[in-house]
Amino acid sequence: MLNIELSEWKSRLQSGKFRFLSGKRLISLIIVVSISSFVFADEGMWTMDQIDKLDLEKKGLKIPLKEVYNPDGTSLFNAIVNLGGGTSEFVSANGLILTNHHVAYGAVQRASTQGTDYLTNGFLANSLEEEIQAPGSSAMIIDEIRDVTNEVIMAGAKIKNLVKRQKALDAKIQAITDAIEEGKEDVTARIAAMYEGQQYLLYIYKRFDDVRIVYMPPLAIGNYGADIDNWMWPRHTGDFAYARVYVSPDGIGRKYDPENVPYKPKKWLKISTRNLNNGDFTMVMGFPGQTSRYRTSHSVKYNRELYYPDWLKIAGDIINILEKAGEESPGAAMAVAGQRKGIANYQKKWGGTVASMDKCDFLNETFKQEQKFKQSINSDRKLKKKYGNILDDIGTLYKDQIANKKHDDLLNYFGGYWGFIGTIPAVANNIYYVAKEREKPAIERDPNFSEKDVQRNIERLHYRYMGFYEPAQKQLFKYFLEKSEKLPVNNRVKGIDEVLAKNNMTAAEYVDFAFENTKLKDTEYVKTLINLKSAEMVKLDDPFINLAKAIYVENEASRKRNEKYGAEITELRKNYMEALRLMSDEAVYPDANSSIRFTYGDVEGYKPRDAVQYTPFTTLGGAIEKDTGVSPFDMPAKLKELYKARDYGNWADPDLNDMPIAFLHTTDITNGNSGSPVLNAYGEMIGIAFDGNLEAMLSDWKFDPAIQRTISVDIRYVMFVTEKYAGADYLLEEMGLK
Amino acid sequence: MLNIELSEWKSRLQSGKFRFLSGKRLISLIIVVSISSFVFADEGMWTMDQIDKLDLEKKGLKIPLKEVYNPDGTSLFNAIVNLGGGTSEFVSANGLILTNHHVAYGAVQRASTQGTDYLTNGFLANSLEEEIQAPGSSAMIIDEIRDVTNEVIMAGAKIKNLVKRQKALDAKIQAITDAIEEGKEDVTARIAAMYEGQQYLLYIYKRFDDVRIVYMPPLAIGNYGADIDNWMWPRHTGDFAYARVYVSPDGIGRKYDPENVPYKPKKWLKISTRNLNNGDFTMVMGFPGQTSRYRTSHSVKYNRELYYPDWLKIAGDIINILEKAGEESPGAAMAVAGQRKGIANYQKKWGGTVASMDKCDFLNETFKQEQKFKQSINSDRKLKKKYGNILDDIGTLYKDQIANKKHDDLLNYFGGYWGFIGTIPAVANNIYYVAKEREKPAIERDPNFSEKDVQRNIERLHYRYMGFYEPAQKQLFKYFLEKSEKLPVNNRVKGIDEVLAKNNMTAAEYVDFAFENTKLKDTEYVKTLINLKSAEMVKLDDPFINLAKAIYVENEASRKRNEKYGAEITELRKNYMEALRLMSDEAVYPDANSSIRFTYGDVEGYKPRDAVQYTPFTTLGGAIEKDTGVSPFDMPAKLKELYKARDYGNWADPDLNDMPIAFLHTTDITNGNSGSPVLNAYGEMIGIAFDGNLEAMLSDWKFDPAIQRTISVDIRYVMFVTEKYAGADYLLEEMGLK
Repeated sequence: MLNIELSEWKSRLQSGKFRFLSGKRLISLIIVVSISSFVFADEGMWTMDQIDKLDLEKKGLKIPLKEVYNPDGTSLFNAIVNLGGGTSEFVSANGLILTNHHVAYGAVQRASTQGTDYLTNGFLANSLEEEIQAPGSSAMIIDEIRDVTNEVIMAGAKIKNLVKRQKALDAKIQAITDAIEEGKEDVTARIAAMYEGQQYLLYIYKRFDDVRIVYMPPLAIGNYGADIDNWMWPRHTGDFAYARVYVSPDGIGRKYDPENVPYKPKKWLKISTRNLNNGDFTMVMGFPGQTSRYRTSHSVKYNRELYYPDWLKIAGDIINILEKAGEESPGAAMAVAGQRKGIANYQKKWGGTVASMDKCDFLNETFKQEQKFKQSINSDRKLKKKYGNILDDIGTLYKDQIANKKHDDLLNYFGGYWGFIGTIPAVANNIYYVAKEREKPAIERDPNFSEKDVQRNIERLHYRYMGFYEPAQKQLFKYFLEKSEKLPVNNRVKGIDEVLAKNNMTAAEYVDFAFENTKLKDTEYVKTLINLKSAEMVKLDDPFINLAKAIYVENEASRKRNEKYGAEITELRKNYMEALRLMSDEAVYPDANSSIRFTYGDVEGYKPRDAVQYTPFTTLGGAIEKDTGVSPFDMPAKLKELYKARDYGNWADPDLNDMPIAFLHTTDITNGNSGSPVLNAYGEMIGIAFDGNLEAMLSDWKFDPAIQRTISVDIRYVMFVTEKYAGADYLLEEMGLK
Repeated sequence: MLNIELSEWKSRLQSGKFRFLSGKRLISLIIVVSISSFVFADEGMWTMDQIDKLDLEKKGLKIPLKEVYNPDGTSLFNAIVNLGGGTSEFVSANGLILTNHHVAYGAVQRASTQGTDYLTNGFLANSLEEEIQAPGSSAMIIDEIRDVTNEVIMAGAKIKNLVKRQKALDAKIQAITDAIEEGKEDVTARIAAMYEGQQYLLYIYKRFDDVRIVYMPPLAIGNYGADIDNWMWPRHTGDFAYARVYVSPDGIGRKYDPENVPYKPKKWLKISTRNLNNGDFTMVMGFPGQTSRYRTSHSVKYNRELYYPDWLKIAGDIINILEKAGEESPGAAMAVAGQRKGIANYQKKWGGTVASMDKCDFLNETFKQEQKFKQSINSDRKLKKKYGNILDDIGTLYKDQIANKKHDDLLNYFGGYWGFIGTIPAVANNIYYVAKEREKPAIERDPNFSEKDVQRNIERLHYRYMGFYEPAQKQLFKYFLEKSEKLPVNNRVKGIDEVLAKNNMTAAEYVDFAFENTKLKDTEYVKTLINLKSAEMVKLDDPFINLAKAIYVENEASRKRNEKYGAEITELRKNYMEALRLMSDEAVYPDANSSIRFTYGDVEGYKPRDAVQYTPFTTLGGAIEKDTGVSPFDMPAKLKELYKARDYGNWADPDLNDMPIAFLHTTDITNGNSGSPVLNAYGEMIGIAFDGNLEAMLSDWKFDPAIQRTISVDIRYVMFVTEKYAGADYLLEEMGLK
């Protein structure tokens, strides 16, 4: 699945603390003339302004480029909707959007209460009145894209100290976005650093906080195959859901209000009623989260040998704890399901990434390409002077990171890195941090601190508690406390040691004590604390606030260290990227960073191994072959009856002589693209992207055209289920199909 | 693997005791006009005299039919060699034969002694002198095929009692074959019942008991992938071995003698040097062991619900015992390897058969077809009178079989059903049985008893002991004794109860006692017993002979019961088959019965499941992708070097741009075909058949053209390994390739 379910820690990865910026495989740049034109034919997550360089007409596009993207008018681009960790798209004049089942999953889980399990059973609103709120969901469309490179860069032009320079840039970015958002309730401004900071693009969004669920198929369709089939082909998941975007009667995006009315978008997508064939042109727009296509060997080594293994170990332990807790009751299972799912998704992805790295000896490959980079740079005196030390300097920075890794992993738990699995420790940590930041002179504050974010976090606080299941949270808290205890002294979180010593308790005892005595389980109480001074907070003697206070010094030190690291590595990577672009004579796309991107390719299978060919379409017949009657292969009886009766409406594929479910195409996408519309050469919607394939798990690091595929649910299956299974003819009418 | 490794019990299955005769899927017969001509295009294991009905020129054969089979002259048919449980073929004027690695496996294992592990390391004779005996191997070629139907059937024409009639037929068969073998050292005559006894064909073979091993690749080539890949595609096993057939200087097939010389066959196969492509015509001749394509639902039900589950349970237990015993030492591992391998092969096959039966609801399908058969028969008064009761009568017979099943399973162990895993109990049982048979009047003797067989068994006795590993044999003996004890009284082997009671021992105690006190571990001693009267044997007070005596009455009762069942079911199946043939307007092939058969088809992949296509060629590149360095995926370093250097000689495939290893084709084969030559349209050898695919595990019961495939090792890989890996240029010269 390609959403950013764990957006909490993903965004943190992208922010100051773990600023993971990025070395495109040199082979495509240095030997650019000989190979880039065909080997990487479909590679690239292009910014919208780059699409005129892609020669799309030649590649099969049948409509004018301006119909795809027109900054001065209306184009398909305007139908694309950002949905937090995923993508969605308008499909009617009345604000109806389509996205993935797994993107809507969290919201629907939150909307489910005991007795109304919308996840398992699905949900269909038979009219606007029956649509239910999707708690915590915000949708955004892009009103404008503006290049603010000069403005941002000039802010730091005269500052030599890299940390200070970065702070100045961050402050400038904040100032620009603040100015735009100022006084506008439904505007969000974001600036994305392209090419590691060579370019800054400002995206001005209109935001809608009232999103309602329209139709969600049952789990046995929307998540058919579940974790077993996740990242796999052949795939038979009907991974789609409908929602609707609401605004105030005067068109302002705002929170849920009974007075709100469906939003009228200026552009919506037409559902294709054409047949779809092997080799057909496809294009995708969406919000890919993060790639690392231009990394040096130091980064590869750090991730392969340290980051991924540590992450996989902790993730595995967390999942075990959640699963055990979930066995207690159906309610418990539902409470932990979303957290488990999000982590399990990345567990499969990053486990596959590690295996793929090893299979192609990626570290060695990167190292060899770096040697070529060095040779090229060193052959020119000027280049050598400017770029000759980059690689060594990057290596030096990584050494320090490695030394602090295990210690910082523990702080991450308290920092909310693992999403909602440590609700109270993270809330305590956050409110104490807010108090301490406010007590600092403005100049010394964390550049990521913003009063606006604080307000927003307070407003959304109850969402953090929605998956709160105390037995699981206690076990997880205990796990992290004990993990610290098992480390060598210099890696331990000293604040934890202090608190345990002071209370004369074991970790397990402190866990019971803390959960018994804390008042932070009550969100209304938490809200009353947000304007207290740090000293006042400490006086409350809450066990979690006491812990937050105890680890604060370490948190600050870690923050400072990572701030310095971030500023320095960013500068080095920017220079490295500059050198790479200098040496390329073709357009280079920037790494993904959750800003909107365009990618194209064609419908195509692949060869996963010797003598095996995956063909690009799966069918309802194939889904039924997998049916065991037991979840996750528990095909609903009605779907089997429709299959038996060949009651497909107009949606069957004449060549397959069956109902298509999913298809493969060569577009270059990643997490965050989930829910993106797949369009044909005529700009009509033919599918919804929802996954990549396990063989291409290295895709965030390296594009391999032979094996990297997007897996999309076929729009014909979406329409068939909507019409024949759900009987929601009115939706087809709304989309102009009846 | 498609040899008949467990020939001991397989032949028993085919003999009187478990005469499993056979109901072709009615759909191909009753609705014959509408479907048999295209759906079952390549179906059929045809007798040689049927090939002129197959329209082979139209199907792609480029040489005259007479070059394939000419009963009055020399044809490709004459190059086919029966090798006991498998097939092989002459490939030089000097008696060189090719077969499968796994067919030669047992012989090479027996030829290996401590310190010379030919199995693991492979073996290459650099000259005739270096060739080593293949202990226990006999090769046979067919000199003549004669229809003896009238002669056989007339012998029983006037006998009403079915048991007596069957005995008369069996006696006639014995008399005919005895007369032919009489006075001829190297002649073996066999009569095969076709169509459940509607036709009898006599095969006169010339036999060669001196077979020598020429080249056997190492296990890491010949058994690459081993049990993990067995029955699987994609496959990368170099499953081939060379041997040579020797005769006396005057051309008589005889046992090993240093004076023996290579046999000069009248026909040998030319190795193809053409390219091989998807869609190319292929044909196979060989000795398929057994199919059940024309069975009724009673048989399907009995096998699905009783025979296979019981067999799989016992086989699993035996394998566990063997594996545990094999862990003791490398010697132990080698000793049990062959037995384990043989059983594991069938375990995978029959486990797959059960799964396939369930997947297509085969029992129900058979039942429905039977209903159609009944309708057709009942619609005609004459047909109804003659064939109207067949199905009910078959059902009645099965009831009795089911009642005795568990009890007889145990007797089977003593009868040698499980191959060499119960050596001493089986030997004791056999010599006691021989003594008792000799004491009977000739007319009352077991029709399967033959003095010639007795002599042959004595001569080959030491082979029975070659895999003898006492710790494993003790565990297995204990397993079967205890299995009897656990059954309800009426299913128990009473003889076992008696012996244990008489000795006042538990099963475990008796096992220790028996192995400590028996003299039957010594083959020379056993030979001295073969002419004793049964009473003299009993006086020896050998624990195993005592047991044989104790279970003799039950054995006899079981034999009688099965004799009666065999005679009656054979008659019913013959009549059923007669009705089926009457109703068909196309040629019908008889079920396989280890007699030579012809089958044809083309090179073709298949679709194992939705959106997955298996292409028909695997490559050395694919084999190396599987390489883990650990058995069974421990590709030899030299092969990897040859791959790296693309040092393929003339054997690479230009289209694959790689060395082909195995290929798929649509020919209809089964166990016993292992080692069969695969020929192209020009009659040149393009491969060696060695396996079927797991998806077609129901193939013994039902031919499914969409998924049933033969897996063959590509002759180009055989030649490449012979030339480049083994450096055996002289073999290529001998085959006319240098």
